[in-house]
Amino acid sequence: MELQEAKARIDALQRKEIAYNHAMGLLSYDGATGAPAGTAANRGETLAVLSEASYGIATGPEMIETVETLLRHADELDEVTRRIAEVKNKDLTELRKIPVEDYVAYTKLINEADAVWHKAKENNDYASFAPYIARIVEFHKKIAALVSPEKDPYDYWLDRFEEGLTREKCEVFFAALRREIVPLVKKVTASPQVDDSLNHIPFPIPEQEKLSDELMALMGIDRDHCTISTTEHPFTTEFSKYDVRITTHYHETSFLSSLFSVVHEGGHALYELNVADELAYTCLGRGVSMGVHESQSRFFENIIGRSEAFAALLFPILERLFPEQMKGRTPHGLYLAANKSEPSLIRTEADELTYSLHIMVRFEIEKRLFAGEVTAADLPALWNALYKEYLGVDVPDARRGVLQDSHWSGGMFGYFPSYALGSAYGAEILARMEREFDVFAAVEHNEIAKINDWLREHIWKFGSLYKPGELMEKVFGAPFDPAYYTNYLKKKYASIYGFEA
Amino acid sequence: MELQEAKARIDALQRKEIAYNHAMGLLSYDGATGAPAGTAANRGETLAVLSEASYGIATGPEMIETVETLLRHADELDEVTRRIAEVKNKDLTELRKIPVEDYVAYTKLINEADAVWHKAKENNDYASFAPYIARIVEFHKKIAALVSPEKDPYDYWLDRFEEGLTREKCEVFFAALRREIVPLVKKVTASPQVDDSLNHIPFPIPEQEKLSDELMALMGIDRDHCTISTTEHPFTTEFSKYDVRITTHYHETSFLSSLFSVVHEGGHALYELNVADELAYTCLGRGVSMGVHESQSRFFENIIGRSEAFAALLFPILERLFPEQMKGRTPHGLYLAANKSEPSLIRTEADELTYSLHIMVRFEIEKRLFAGEVTAADLPALWNALYKEYLGVDVPDARRGVLQDSHWSGGMFGYFPSYALGSAYGAEILARMEREFDVFAAVEHNEIAKINDWLREHIWKFGSLYKPGELMEKVFGAPFDPAYYTNYLKKKYASIYGFEA
Repeated sequence: MELQEAKARIDALQRKEIAYNHAMGLLSYDGATGAPAGTAANRGETLAVLSEASYGIATGPEMIETVETLLRHADELDEVTRRIAEVKNKDLTELRKIPVEDYVAYTKLINEADAVWHKAKENNDYASFAPYIARIVEFHKKIAALVSPEKDPYDYWLDRFEEGLTREKCEVFFAALRREIVPLVKKVTASPQVDDSLNHIPFPIPEQEKLSDELMALMGIDRDHCTISTTEHPFTTEFSKYDVRITTHYHETSFLSSLFSVVHEGGHALYELNVADELAYTCLGRGVSMGVHESQSRFFENIIGRSEAFAALLFPILERLFPEQMKGRTPHGLYLAANKSEPSLIRTEADELTYSLHIMVRFEIEKRLFAGEVTAADLPALWNALYKEYLGVDVPDARRGVLQDSHWSGGMFGYFPSYALGSAYGAEILARMEREFDVFAAVEHNEIAKINDWLREHIWKFGSLYKPGELMEKVFGAPFDPAYYTNYLKKKYASIYGFEA
Repeated sequence: MELQEAKARIDALQRKEIAYNHAMGLLSYDGATGAPAGTAANRGETLAVLSEASYGIATGPEMIETVETLLRHADELDEVTRRIAEVKNKDLTELRKIPVEDYVAYTKLINEADAVWHKAKENNDYASFAPYIARIVEFHKKIAALVSPEKDPYDYWLDRFEEGLTREKCEVFFAALRREIVPLVKKVTASPQVDDSLNHIPFPIPEQEKLSDELMALMGIDRDHCTISTTEHPFTTEFSKYDVRITTHYHETSFLSSLFSVVHEGGHALYELNVADELAYTCLGRGVSMGVHESQSRFFENIIGRSEAFAALLFPILERLFPEQMKGRTPHGLYLAANKSEPSLIRTEADELTYSLHIMVRFEIEKRLFAGEVTAADLPALWNALYKEYLGVDVPDARRGVLQDSHWSGGMFGYFPSYALGSAYGAEILARMEREFDVFAAVEHNEIAKINDWLREHIWKFGSLYKPGELMEKVFGAPFDPAYYTNYLKKKYASIYGFEA
């Protein structure tokens, strides 16, 4: 194959892959939003057919020959095509090193595990789920050994979700967090609690829906390419940079829940919507990693959304939509209510400050499981001990403890750390941005477009062109430093809870 | 290939085809319901990839060999498999007789025509669209000649939408309708008009949404396998008998519009939801034709939905949901408002009585176009003359005349007659059903389940196992007779408008 032909072919192959991803993504999105309750089996049949076809494209002889041709001419390629060839080669190598029987057996195991986990959580019965944890970890070690025998298996999986991330890097990072955040949480817990009564009175859902539209407008989200709908657990999905969907869940007596969920998912959406057009319909045409994605969503949710400036911007809108509820309230009161912090049991309900401690618990457990230092049977006790140590809370049962998340039953070991990493990236992004303009003045003056312009130029437009760590170092102009994050948290919570930073 | 293998393969091939149909159907459904406005181009890319793959399955060597093997063993096949082989062979023959260049050129022409039609309608400019009518008709004649050179080309297209239907059958049918309905419309027009003021006062949309849920419950629609959402022009789509979607459009000051749209689409949905499980995931696992489908949707919308019995059943529900609007109203008043009849310009807004006259205009035009008796340039004048003749109305412009429907720009010549045929089938179905039980007593006593049971046993469960005309004759126990329909209309409208039937 000639280089010119290979270039045309890789373009056509990627367009095909992206079409299948679009269809499969839409099926999943539909399942989580509009589909009737009894349609999961039918959807499963369709997804199986499409994923087999998509796997055929990704690993077929045409893909192999095309990628090999590109790699032979690596020196003649432009930056984008070279990175595409590299990413495709990495995928291909993985897929070719895992025997198809293992792939099928793994998919079967995960399907079973998911069903068992649902029941186990419902029945508060960890014992029934423990064998699956053991089998999944074994399988993950096996896959890591097949694909990257030279690597520590946990490193292999960390790298899968956040290219370049290692256990060692995580340890340094989490040690810094533990050192600063654990004592900070103790100080907050010892201080008088802020008033969040605003978040416990009824806010009618039709007006909350209007608020979502206003939030998306404030954030500069292009509604011609992004909709919002409702689901059980909010998420964002993109079929391409031209078609992004965010979701939320409305609770009548907890309006801040959907409000910050929209701002969070809106951050994910902005990233996808603003990838450069040149990268669309290629494997680089989307956010580069979970960590960088969370750096955007949490930046908008917490750093921007939970700022005093945003409370000031939002307040008149809330007064207009909810005149009764907002009577006698102040922007500062809204700001305090949005930042109430309290050690708790459930990760997905955790506040900005305590969130990364929940992640740390999971990192510690994954690390020790993969190192063989603990077994599946040890997890509940270890979980509970770590919650006590980091958060100071007693876990009453497995349902609100080790069984709370779906990640492990879905085989997503190595995924959790990127949540915390994203939060920390966000704080350093803020520091970098503040050297150029007054970020919170922009928020208060309804000029979030300034922030978007900066993020587009420094992060969004690059899609997956650079590895995540590389991209962040370009943005920071220096190696990543978690002190930006811990300093940000210390300053913010000292001010809110009235103690010395 | 052995027969046993062919049986397994046809099953697997159909499951694949149905998976692609599911994905493509969901993409279109999404485009008409939840998708952001700027995503059509992206969706087009994806649909192109999937339809190419699906075409490959439908016409590939595996399909050909499998169908040929089944046909060689036709005598040994059970009824279902024999019909599957017959249907597949028909599809294959068509696909193989149309050169792929023609197929591509036709698709391109239709895409262009659709865009030109939208603009032409907007600008009230038939002249810009006329060349497309001419080219599409030419193409349709060409395709008919390629596939069935022995057939009249219009017969070929009628048969495509309603297997077994011919121009001759249509002529007999429409002549009977014209003879009875045209004078009936004149009598109605000469009578004092009924009061439909109820349909012009505001009905809040959130309560209309609740009404939709109640209607679906009354009709016995399984909500685990059928949802409702909103769109511009209501339609029903099914991804399999296990996943059906209906849509509606709410108008605040025309609540009957959505009400009857839900009942109409609900009729389509019931048909799909009640195909026998054994036929699921095969090409027989869906309603057999447009005509039979409309016989179900119009049966529910008009014969059941617009009956005095249904008005009685509905009235207390409306009083509960809309206490203010229903104050001083009566079930009989609701019945009258739902049956206001008036010759009008727009097919989709026509009432039960005048509807088939709109169809007759289109049939006359299609027939003469295909026979070469008129050309594209003659259409506006012919259209207007026929509207005057059948409905007694003057067409003021092409937008409200010959340009109103999207069908012709989409290449759907031969499709319209099935709308009228379906209405007439419905009336004969009613007559047949009434020999076994009191249909309207069942409606009034909230026992629509009785009607559903009857339709399931006589029609729904068979899916596409029998040809449409064959199925209807089985139901009727006699050849189809349009007099049931015209008699039904005469009796109903004489009673409503107070003249002698």
